Parts: sequence; structure tokens; C-alpha cells
Amino acid sequence: MAWFRSLIRVSAVQPRNAVSSPFSVTSTLLSLRSLSGEASNQPQDPQPVPIQYSGLAPTRPGEKPRVVILGSGWAGCRLMKGLDTELYDVVCVSPRNHMVFTPLLASTCVGTLEFRSVAEPIARIQPAISREPGSYFFLANCTGIEADKHLVHCETVTDGPDTLDPWKFKIAYDKLVIALGAQPLTFGIHGVNEHAIFLREVHHAQEIRRKLLLNLMLSEVPGISEEEKSRLLHCVVVGGGPTGVEFSGELSDFIKNDVHQRYAHVKDHIHVTLIEANEILSSFDDRLRQYATKQLTKSGVRLVRGIVKDVKAQKLILNDGTEVPYGLLVWSTGVGPSSLVNSLEFPKSPGGRIGIDEWLRVPSMEDVFAIGDCSGFVESTGKPALPALAQVAERQGKYLAHLLNKIGKANGGHASTWNAAELGEPFVYRHLGSMATIGRYKALVDLRQSKEAKGLSMAGFVSWFIWRSAYLTRVISWRNRFYVAINWLTTLVFGRDISRI
Amino acid sequence: MAWFRSLIRVSAVQPRNAVSSPFSVTSTLLSLRSLSGEASNQPQDPQPVPIQYSGLAPTRPGEKPRVVILGSGWAGCRLMKGLDTELYDVVCVSPRNHMVFTPLLASTCVGTLEFRSVAEPIARIQPAISREPGSYFFLANCTGIEADKHLVHCETVTDGPDTLDPWKFKIAYDKLVIALGAQPLTFGIHGVNEHAIFLREVHHAQEIRRKLLLNLMLSEVPGISEEEKSRLLHCVVVGGGPTGVEFSGELSDFIKNDVHQRYAHVKDHIHVTLIEANEILSSFDDRLRQYATKQLTKSGVRLVRGIVKDVKAQKLILNDGTEVPYGLLVWSTGVGPSSLVNSLEFPKSPGGRIGIDEWLRVPSMEDVFAIGDCSGFVESTGKPALPALAQVAERQGKYLAHLLNKIGKANGGHASTWNAAELGEPFVYRHLGSMATIGRYKALVDLRQSKEAKGLSMAGFVSWFIWRSAYLTRVISWRNRFYVAINWLTTLVFGRDISRI
Repeated sequence: MAWFRSLIRVSAVQPRNAVSSPFSVTSTLLSLRSLSGEASNQPQDPQPVPIQYSGLAPTRPGEKPRVVILGSGWAGCRLMKGLDTELYDVVCVSPRNHMVFTPLLASTCVGTLEFRSVAEPIARIQPAISREPGSYFFLANCTGIEADKHLVHCETVTDGPDTLDPWKFKIAYDKLVIALGAQPLTFGIHGVNEHAIFLREVHHAQEIRRKLLLNLMLSEVPGISEEEKSRLLHCVVVGGGPTGVEFSGELSDFIKNDVHQRYAHVKDHIHVTLIEANEILSSFDDRLRQYATKQLTKSGVRLVRGIVKDVKAQKLILNDGTEVPYGLLVWSTGVGPSSLVNSLEFPKSPGGRIGIDEWLRVPSMEDVFAIGDCSGFVESTGKPALPALAQVAERQGKYLAHLLNKIGKANGGHASTWNAAELGEPFVYRHLGSMATIGRYKALVDLRQSKEAKGLSMAGFVSWFIWRSAYLTRVISWRNRFYVAINWLTTLVFGRDISRI
Repeated sequence: MAWFRSLIRVSAVQPRNAVSSPFSVTSTLLSLRSLSGEASNQPQDPQPVPIQYSGLAPTRPGEKPRVVILGSGWAGCRLMKGLDTELYDVVCVSPRNHMVFTPLLASTCVGTLEFRSVAEPIARIQPAISREPGSYFFLANCTGIEADKHLVHCETVTDGPDTLDPWKFKIAYDKLVIALGAQPLTFGIHGVNEHAIFLREVHHAQEIRRKLLLNLMLSEVPGISEEEKSRLLHCVVVGGGPTGVEFSGELSDFIKNDVHQRYAHVKDHIHVTLIEANEILSSFDDRLRQYATKQLTKSGVRLVRGIVKDVKAQKLILNDGTEVPYGLLVWSTGVGPSSLVNSLEFPKSPGGRIGIDEWLRVPSMEDVFAIGDCSGFVESTGKPALPALAQVAERQGKYLAHLLNKIGKANGGHASTWNAAELGEPFVYRHLGSMATIGRYKALVDLRQSKEAKGLSMAGFVSWFIWRSAYLTRVISWRNRFYVAINWLTTLVFGRDISRI
């Protein structure tokens, strides 16, 4: 065993002798200490000081400036993709290492698309984070921002004690971009977080899929009462925005094409109910809305006007006291500011988002920008709040990449070196129209610039084709475009996949 | 809201008025009561009796006989595929609704293949279970067998109280096939079940993948010590059989091709160690074994001879006291009888498997068969135990389908109606050779009939090509063949996927 022990010894010793990296604990720690005022009283003390915090120290004048991006959604990823890594080091902090192609997420719940096809690794969006010595991706949550010190606080995401206790660290930034997104609104209704499933992340779609297939299989078990069978197979969607409507449409497609074939024993018990307090698809043209209502009803989705009062484990209760038993409950009633955004002592826009000016800067905070669903124009700009849409986030990310690259080229990349006179054109949002699929090769496309404006709106197969093509060309990498096309093709030929894995 | 309440009312009432199905609780319950002697003292009591048990009653003479299959592995699925559903109703009981294509499972851990590509839904293998009125798949575990009453006891698999409490039911069979597989051997070593991951199911592969990617990302976080980084990135595989070797090979491929490109910051810290008490690939030809050892060592896998004594959360301890810190521990030291098999009071083969005769019948148990890893020839047959291999299970499933179809055609399908004189040829196993991939487009193919026999054995690219082709044509459905080919192609073109979803 001597050779093995020596191997183990080598592996334990070698890294200590390795070339010091930018991670080198001691040097970084010292820099941070001097920076954050947490220095030991005896810096010359030869004994090791217990390490509480570590991190990335501020960049020095000769080094590339560092852009820190919080979040990996549409806004953050589009920004990373556009940043010139010759000018900047890029550091991304997010609890997930991929971007989710949210408009296609509903399709993954029923097996039309694979989960992998709608997730794009950040390392593919911006390869520098895995190659450049000063660029990183950190699987962590931001826990606080010290804007006066140009510093963000982070804590690692872990999977329990077997791996590692959560680890805190700080990152000094030259430019900070907050792209933290939003979180689902529950309106304080009791039981939503416990019993309903949202539809924002891949793990949500996985949970919906597992539960749907489990309920289908459980309802086949002998001895189960008819009432319980109907409950298990009652899929309730709360919220009639595009997400809720698209999910209802996918679900009714799945029932019509796959449940009828693969679960013939229980096919007459499965039902979909869509509950909405107002009108479904309220941002769409009247005609489109009527069309969607007709199509959804035709494909078996029950549309119900109601306000949810309480959610319990197996039923929800409406405002008028009606009890609705469910087996699967999906919640998609829109989004609002996350708890971190709420806790930040930053200027806010109406609605509680982080306030930004026309150049997407957070006013009075030097070198801080905010984009995507977490941000909104401050009142002084006189601009309306932009909707929490992927296309807004994507356009803001693109604009900011351009702006930061311009600043970098003008040698304004480093912290507190930026001359605001060089700003250039402000960000202007032009709405390109809304799209939503309603199942069965049908979709709505609304190309009006706003709810009041005149313009083209259409519905049906042609829109569905436009919808699919538009999304296919927007999925970021060729690899995922290829996979999405292959998924659609196999679903068409072989039907949806029903393995519960 | 009146229309909604009426909708709810309709949905609650309608099923009760629906045509009575074979699941009808009352009739089934009564049949089972008379069968199992659990009848109430007052069967004429008009008050409802609390339902404890329900299930599928015995088939009647005019009905199709019912084959109950416990398990959905290679043996059970091959049998289901081959059964003539004109002759039999098929009922499968298993905690998973898909078959896992185990030889390709190692490839899914590192993203070479998608999880979906190696899982085949049972409803695709035998469509009758979702179409025929008397055929079913039940997502449940078998909890006991009453062979004298031709009855199996089952309990549903659930995902916690939100869905349904576990539900018990009984199924009467005409023919019972036990294909429960085996469970990983831990040799009573403390901590294996808690800290190590096996590699037998898709959820194991998902866990390995999530942990591997998490450790790669955590080790990039600033402030982590070099020692901790080395631990996190130390992947230890215990067991040098084909599974352990294939996983080590895949892992070293992943490190060479993808970690070096996508995790450049930590690429020098990641290492793979394969621990085996004896020789790796002990069933293979000497020359092949030497070749495998050379290739694995060349690709950076450390081969260690040792016996694991104890497993703790972040390190394992060998017999000689050596401590081996690990970030990921995969356990593949072979399989043994499951606890249900141990608990059955059936004749056993040497090694504790369910004893079978040459026709795969369980001796002295009428209408009961056992196939796959859970079964072994009883001593009186004078035949050696067959290895726990997919090809054995697959061949047994095929043979038994043929035998049962023959019995069914001779009107021996119903319980206790079978004339043993009609048995025909006994099952004979002919070993077709062993294959194992060792990464980097290299594989071993050993076409000898046994360890002692002479025959063709080869290693290298040609074998790898044979290995891939052989598996590709064996993946059961065209859909999965297509997906596996597409996965291999995209891995070649775009590299492996690294989203942690």
C-alpha cells in the first residue's frame, strides 16, 4: 500500500506548492481586510488568523476592470454574451449555472421538449468565465451589497453537509450589474408556497412532470375511490397570463394525444381548470383573447373566474367559499420584487423594483446598473414601468453590454473613473409584440406596440408556426436549436415521453 | 359563479354514475374477501364497511388469464415485450414506470447521453398495459406473496402526503413472474448507504451528475483551501467490475475533454481513484485486463488495491488505516438479493437467490417463475449460478415469454390448470461474451464462452465501435436508438452538457 499512500500524500501536498492563483487565500484576505476595515489588530502576528471571509480583491490600475453580474436570467446572460472580454473580466454570481429559456419551459412539463433543451450553460453563453484567469462563475447567492465600498457579499449554494457548509465571500467590483429577476407573487395567500408549484425554473417543470405522471399512475391503482381519482387527475392552473395559458394548452394537448393513448384506463377522469381573477391574456387584443378562450374551452380546459382565498394540501378555496379539489396546482399569477431587492436600500421605482434612469444606472449609486425584471424606471424619468418580459430583459442586457463596452474603450472601466458625459443614447424600449401558444398547433401573435395601439394581430396555425420559428431562432446556441428541433420532431413522430425519472 | 359550481358538481358526481370498471371497489372487495377469508361477519350489513384492502380479483374461466410481473428491469421488460396479449392480460408492479438501459447509465452521469435516452417507458415496451381493459401497470412495491392463494400484496409508491398516503392492495394471479432484480452489496460496511451513491437507476446517475457539477463549481469559490479543493474534486469509485471501470473511463473522458475546457480554473485538482479489493474486470481475459489497466492509468485514473473498512461523510478508511478524502463516492461492488427476496419463504439457490429449475419455475410453488438477478438454479439442477448480467436476464425473459405463450395456447394459462408434461425444452444459457468501455474511444470485447475457454478477445477502437453499435441496436425502441445516436453526435460536435438542472 506504500505506493497508494504516497499518491495520497502527493495529492495532499502538491496543491500547496502549486503556483499561487488569484484565489490565494492569504493575499486576497489581506487585501480585503485592508479594504473592509476588518483587519486583525496584529497584522504582523505570525500565527494563522481564523479565516471568516475571503474573496476577490479590487482590481489594480494595470489589470482589466471587473464587471460583476448578479443573476443568470435573460438580462444577465444577454449582457454577458455581449461584453467585450478584451476590455473586462466577467464575474457572474447566480444560484444556477445555466440560463432557462423560459418561454419553452411549459413544454418540458409534459415531455414535448427535454429539460436539457431549454437550459443553456453560462459557460457556453460567455466562454471567458471558464477560460480567462480573472473571469469566474460562482454558484452562490448574493446576500448584500455595499455600494459605497464597491463590494458584494455572497454565500455559496450547497446540497447539504456532505458537500460543504455554505461559505461566505466578498467580491470587489468595478461595475456592478444587478439582474436578479423577480419572484412569483403569492399575494400573501396562505399555503401557496407549500402546496403550489411555480413555473419559473427547470426544477419546477421537473416537479410538475413528476407529480403529473405520479398522479396518473396512482389513479390506476385498484381500490382508489372515484372521488379521489377525480381529485388526483384535476390539474388546476391559477393565473391566466401567457404562462398559465401556455401551460394549460400544453396540458390539454398532452391529455388529448398521450393520456388517451397511454393511460386509457383513467383518460375520462383528467381535467384542466384555469382560474383567473380577471380576463385571460389581458395584455392581448380583444379578438385574440376571444379566440384563445374559444380554443381553450374547445380543447377541454375549463376557464373559471375566481379569486383564490386559501390553499390547502388537496384543495383550494375561492373567495365565494367554493372548494376546488386538485391533484396538481400550478401557480402563475405574475412576479414581484424578490426579498433581496426589497432589502436593498437603493432608490426604488413605483412597484418596489430597483430604480434606474434612462441609461439603466441606479441613480446616486456609482458604477451600479440594474436590468431585467428586478429594475424599473424611477419616477423622475417620467417613463412607464416596462412589463416583466423576456424581451425587455434581453434588450436591456444588449443595450448595457454596448454601453459598458463603450465605457471600457474610453478607459472608464475601473471603479470611480467614469465620466458621465460619455453616456450617449439612452435606452429606448420598442415593444415587438406578444406571442402565446394555446396548444394544438395554434398560437396568438399580437404585433401592436401597446394595448391601445392599432396594429397586426393574428391567431391560428400560421401564428403557431411563427411562434415556433421565432423561438427556435432565439434559443441561444446552435446545440440547443438543434435539440429543440429534434425534440419537436420526435414528439411529432413518436409522441411525448412518459418515463418518470 | 353558478356555472363554475355546477361544473364542480358535475365533476364530483359524474364518475359515480360512470360505467363500472374492473376497479369497482365493492365487487372486487367482495371477491377478495371470499378469497382471503377476511370476510365481515355480516356481509348483508347495509352500512358501508371500512375498506382496508382492495385489488384485482381472480380471473374467471371465460376471461383471459392474468400474468403478474414483479419488476421492470431487463428480465421483466423482455418478458412483457414477448408475451402474447391475445392470450394473457399483463399486470406489471414496479416502483418505476420505465426500464433503465443500464449499460449506458455511466455515460449519463457526465452528460455524454441524456437521462431520457437510457429510459424506456414500459407502456412503449408493452402497449397493452395502457390499452387493454385487463392489463395494467401499477407504480407500487410488492410487499409479500401468498403463493398458496395465488395472491401478491402491494403498496403504492408516493411522493409524500400532498399526493396520497401509501395504499395497499392485492392482486390475484394466474401466473406470477418474479423479476425483482438485486440490490447493491455493501458488505455491512458502515456509512455506504448514507454517503456513497450507487449506479443502478436514473436517479443515481442524476445524483452523481449534480454532485460532480456542484463540486466543480464550489471548488472555484474564493477562499476555499487547497486541501478542501482537492477533496471536493477527488472522485472515488469503489469496485472494479464493468460498471466501476466504465464510470471511471467516462469520468476521465469528461475531465480531459470538458473539465479542462469549461473549468480551467480547477482542472489540475480533479482526480479519479478506482479502489478494488482484487483485480479489475476479473471476468475478462488476462490480456484485456492488462490493456484496461494500462489505458485507465494513462488517462489519469489511479488504480488502488484496497478494502474499504468504513465510510464517513467526507472520507473513507481502508483496511490498513489509510484515509482517503473524497468529494464524490460511487459504489459498484456487485449485487446481492434484495430484502424482499430474503424475506420470501421460497426455496433458495446457493447465494440466497430465489431457487429455480431448468424451466425457470420456482419448485413446489405452482404457477410461480423467477427470472433475472433475483433468481438462481437450485442445487438439484446441478447447474452453476448464472452471472448477474443484463444478457442473462434478457435471455431468461425471452425464454419465459415463449414458454408462457406456449402454455397459454395449450389452454394452461389459468391458475392451477397447467399440465407440466407440456414444458418442452429447458432454458440453456449461452454466454455471448462480455464488453466494457474504458473511455477515449476504447473498449474491451471478450467473446469467450467462459473464463477458462479459448476464444476471441480484443481491445481498442474497433472494440469500442462494436460496443457502441451493439448497444445502439439493443436499445429497445427506435425513438431511443435515435436519441442515443443524436446524443453521441452532439457530444462529438458540441461537447458534453454541463447545465446543473
